[in-house]
Amino acid sequence: MGSTRRSVLAAGVAAVASFIEAIVKTRNLVIVIITVAALGTALVLKTVLAQTGDSNRVTVDDLVAANRVLAHEIGVLDAYGHVSVRDPRNPNRYYLSRAISAGMVTAADIIEYDLDSQSIGNNRPDGYLERFIHGEIYKARPDVMAVIHAHSPEMIAFGASSVPLRNMIHTGSFINDGVPVFDVRKFGGTADDMLIRNPALGKALALALGRKTAIIMFGHGVAITGPSLASAVSNAYFLNMNARVQEQAIRLGGTVSYLEREPGAKLPTNIAPAGAAANNRAWEYWKRQVTTR
Amino acid sequence: MGSTRRSVLAAGVAAVASFIEAIVKTRNLVIVIITVAALGTALVLKTVLAQTGDSNRVTVDDLVAANRVLAHEIGVLDAYGHVSVRDPRNPNRYYLSRAISAGMVTAADIIEYDLDSQSIGNNRPDGYLERFIHGEIYKARPDVMAVIHAHSPEMIAFGASSVPLRNMIHTGSFINDGVPVFDVRKFGGTADDMLIRNPALGKALALALGRKTAIIMFGHGVAITGPSLASAVSNAYFLNMNARVQEQAIRLGGTVSYLEREPGAKLPTNIAPAGAAANNRAWEYWKRQVTTR
Amino acid sequence: MGSTRRSVLAAGVAAVASFIEAIVKTRNLVIVIITVAALGTALVLKTVLAQTGDSNRVTVDDLVAANRVLAHEIGVLDAYGHVSVRDPRNPNRYYLSRAISAGMVTAADIIEYDLDSQSIGNNRPDGYLERFIHGEIYKARPDVMAVIHAHSPEMIAFGASSVPLRNMIHTGSFINDGVPVFDVRKFGGTADDMLIRNPALGKALALALGRKTAIIMFGHGVAITGPSLASAVSNAYFLNMNARVQEQAIRLGGTVSYLEREPGAKLPTNIAPAGAAANNRAWEYWKRQVTTR
Amino acid sequence: MGSTRRSVLAAGVAAVASFIEAIVKTRNLVIVIITVAALGTALVLKTVLAQTGDSNRVTVDDLVAANRVLAHEIGVLDAYGHVSVRDPRNPNRYYLSRAISAGMVTAADIIEYDLDSQSIGNNRPDGYLERFIHGEIYKARPDVMAVIHAHSPEMIAFGASSVPLRNMIHTGSFINDGVPVFDVRKFGGTADDMLIRNPALGKALALALGRKTAIIMFGHGVAITGPSLASAVSNAYFLNMNARVQEQAIRLGGTVSYLEREPGAKLPTNIAPAGAAANNRAWEYWKRQVTTR
Repeated sequence: MGSTRRSVLAAGVAAVASFIEAIVKTRNLVIVIITVAALGTALVLKTVLAQTGDSNRVTVDDLVAANRVLAHEIGVLDAYGHVSVRDPRNPNRYYLSRAISAGMVTAADIIEYDLDSQSIGNNRPDGYLERFIHGEIYKARPDVMAVIHAHSPEMIAFGASSVPLRNMIHTGSFINDGVPVFDVRKFGGTADDMLIRNPALGKALALALGRKTAIIMFGHGVAITGPSLASAVSNAYFLNMNARVQEQAIRLGGTVSYLEREPGAKLPTNIAPAGAAANNRAWEYWKRQVTTR
Repeated sequence: MGSTRRSVLAAGVAAVASFIEAIVKTRNLVIVIITVAALGTALVLKTVLAQTGDSNRVTVDDLVAANRVLAHEIGVLDAYGHVSVRDPRNPNRYYLSRAISAGMVTAADIIEYDLDSQSIGNNRPDGYLERFIHGEIYKARPDVMAVIHAHSPEMIAFGASSVPLRNMIHTGSFINDGVPVFDVRKFGGTADDMLIRNPALGKALALALGRKTAIIMFGHGVAITGPSLASAVSNAYFLNMNARVQEQAIRLGGTVSYLEREPGAKLPTNIAPAGAAANNRAWEYWKRQVTTR
Repeated sequence: MGSTRRSVLAAGVAAVASFIEAIVKTRNLVIVIITVAALGTALVLKTVLAQTGDSNRVTVDDLVAANRVLAHEIGVLDAYGHVSVRDPRNPNRYYLSRAISAGMVTAADIIEYDLDSQSIGNNRPDGYLERFIHGEIYKARPDVMAVIHAHSPEMIAFGASSVPLRNMIHTGSFINDGVPVFDVRKFGGTADDMLIRNPALGKALALALGRKTAIIMFGHGVAITGPSLASAVSNAYFLNMNARVQEQAIRLGGTVSYLEREPGAKLPTNIAPAGAAANNRAWEYWKRQVTTR
Repeated sequence: MGSTRRSVLAAGVAAVASFIEAIVKTRNLVIVIITVAALGTALVLKTVLAQTGDSNRVTVDDLVAANRVLAHEIGVLDAYGHVSVRDPRNPNRYYLSRAISAGMVTAADIIEYDLDSQSIGNNRPDGYLERFIHGEIYKARPDVMAVIHAHSPEMIAFGASSVPLRNMIHTGSFINDGVPVFDVRKFGGTADDMLIRNPALGKALALALGRKTAIIMFGHGVAITGPSLASAVSNAYFLNMNARVQEQAIRLGGTVSYLEREPGAKLPTNIAPAGAAANNRAWEYWKRQVTTR
């Protein structure tokens, strides 16, 4: 989004500059007319191209925005985490940045992967080592459209504690389904590394996640999913917030009441739109904040 | 405030653009003169309209500022909460933004409601689902001129703990009146939603609030009131600060002394001006901070 | 400092603007020459005035910087606190802003007071209500050159706890002298106000402070002193940091070792320069940060 | 980097200023031509010098960036700490800023020292008093290429507690080697100072550090090392993060599982590249953030 707008701006500035140059250098009306005509043609071409060009542009732009929102607006990603989105037109593909910090990702950094986490065309060795977290979850969970891998201190603390994360806030009701803790050392990972560095470890993680929304990675971080990119971002936001609220409630020293769903209860389908509306307004706001930075 | 300035700027840019266009396209002096005349007329009209227009402009501008102060300056509202103000000239009306994040609200987003939380003219379906929090409190409490609905982690933590919030700081003396905890599930709300999604739930919340300044919404957030917009903002600021101070004092591990009002004591009327003065200076500062961003 | 630089800039911009205007309007060489001459004269006058003008300019500019450093750089003052400095040339006078938030103070807002906290000329009713904190401490403590009144949550928490603040960090060795807790209610203050609203309460506070560096005001905040403005600012910074370190050490759950000074020990005079040098480099940095904002 | 750009800018501004001055003062075409020629020559010289000049430019520029990253991006250094780097071409030399706050260091502030912490040429009395921390560690540890001295509250809290810092996160595996606590008072330091103010105290600190990555300085701060500047910065970041995670896990109140390395285990050499890659992407990001501020 920001990058698209910047391109338009650059084109505009270049056009205006050449226009001024024409007047200054020649004071020749013919050249002025030609410049104006060229400018008009460029603008028309720009618009046509924007409409007929890469139709995954919206998906990629939203992924760029999600990277920046998670890094700069809501503090979920530091310099090390990453976020991906499934291709809405081809469920066997997903998009993920090359291995740079989320806070600096642009559209030019996005790589397209198949669900084995091989780059399309097989010519991008510059991806994240841990991209298997994304690919294997997409493979196991057709309902998941976006995946975030973060190193939230709140999540690592709960992963290390015998006290389980429990639901505290209405927007974290998915926590009632449970947030499993995955220890990669039991699946062949090493204590000094703990990374999901191959498909087998990714598959083990996806299996441990099951039908849940999020999974804590012991001594490492967390993987969070969502049925859309905006939902995954919101889930990551509320997961951390829920953890902080629980910690605050515990250290007040009294007994704590949790927001348990009654046994057998299901998320009423009629409330989804409300949550979706609230998530959408947050998403629109966060995106705007990072594009006007 | 910022939005007014931006409108003027936009008008100016548009006028200048059409002026340049006229010169470039025609090099015709007559059209240039007409353009200049039109620009002058537009500026005069703009000024006249600004002086004779909506006399609730100050109220609306202050509400816009409150949205931005609560979101950007004092961290009370994240992307999800909202703030309203009663119409000072008509106690049966209140103003509230359409359903967008507080941090991006402008004057153009403000909707006028009656106390049943129906938009005036009945043609604004784009309001917050939970606007009944505001309408029902205004209905029950003629002294309340502004209402804030936030999702402060500090408040949710106290709502979940058996340890009650107690007064720690001189600017939080309203906490001595008690801060009740409201559980919407006892009034027909659902555990996965917890929203004040209809007038009946709003009425139940207002009843539980009684004559108090603030009420914690279990597993959800808080509603805070004030006799003015500036006071409601200050109350929200000090409510969160008091909660953090109490938590810090508790976790030092010793015994804690609270700032209890003596039984039967009342807020001396002669100190109101001092508190008001301090609140006003904070309010003026916070407003300036968000308008110069 | 910032304001001085801004004035120079404004003068420069105005001069350049009139110069351009002269060329555009008249294309008359005489007027161009006159404009250039006027510009030169203005610059010379500016320089002379800056050298011979108010010799308390440095003190006032430093006080403005301290207000902004405490509000914007090191988070000691929120919208409500204040900071003063004694006149280095007249120990019976001190400077303090009119009653606005520290974060927006400029040189034009500074008021000169005598030690009874009466404004010089007696024509400034717009001061802080609690200015007696400053005046009475200056009266009782000739060694104190600057006073800060803040509402630090860390200090209020320790004031409410039976656990005393103790020295944790080498830069907080003044805490070994003790940080008394003052309860204004024992001296005629009211529980709903707690303000130092008259000279008698200020005198009681100064008496309780004694020879110490800082005093906690129960349910309210803190007063911090220093032998210079830079030292008072550093003391406020390290007082809060020490409180946070102590709280963190306590909640780790083990036993805590404090940085106690041996009985009878005194601050060796030969180390003062080192601490002073470190404080000076922080002060220079913080001042630069707020003037380049 | 930023400083180089600023120098170029300053040269440009000065050249343009003298050019304008020439026109204004003389209206003499000859002087105008001379000025333009001088400007051109200056620009050519500037470019040539930049290419053939100090070949330690990269090291110095990275050290400047590290100062700013530690101060502005990852919150490890406040106004008081410092960071140094060993000369990659001469292991008996290291670079460290003169005694100013890390957040304002530029290339012009960097001093070259021998391992006795004497400035080369012996003419720089304006260094940090505690530079012996750096020199003595470089002397004792040929593998160390960078040293950071910070006053992290997390580290001081652990230094004061009987609870040892233990490894919680995969990126903090060096903590498994142990983080010793050094009390300078046992080596002749004073309780009111605690500074490493001479070579003997620096040597004692380096001895206590041994082969470890970091050492806590009781009541004072921490010293952190790395095999490269980027690694030292990452180590400092993860050391603080690990401490916060451990504190959070402890205060949840249950039992805590640590990320212990199995007895006798060593960091597998084959995982170094992955960690290095992640550190590099963080380092590139952090550097970019501080150069675009």
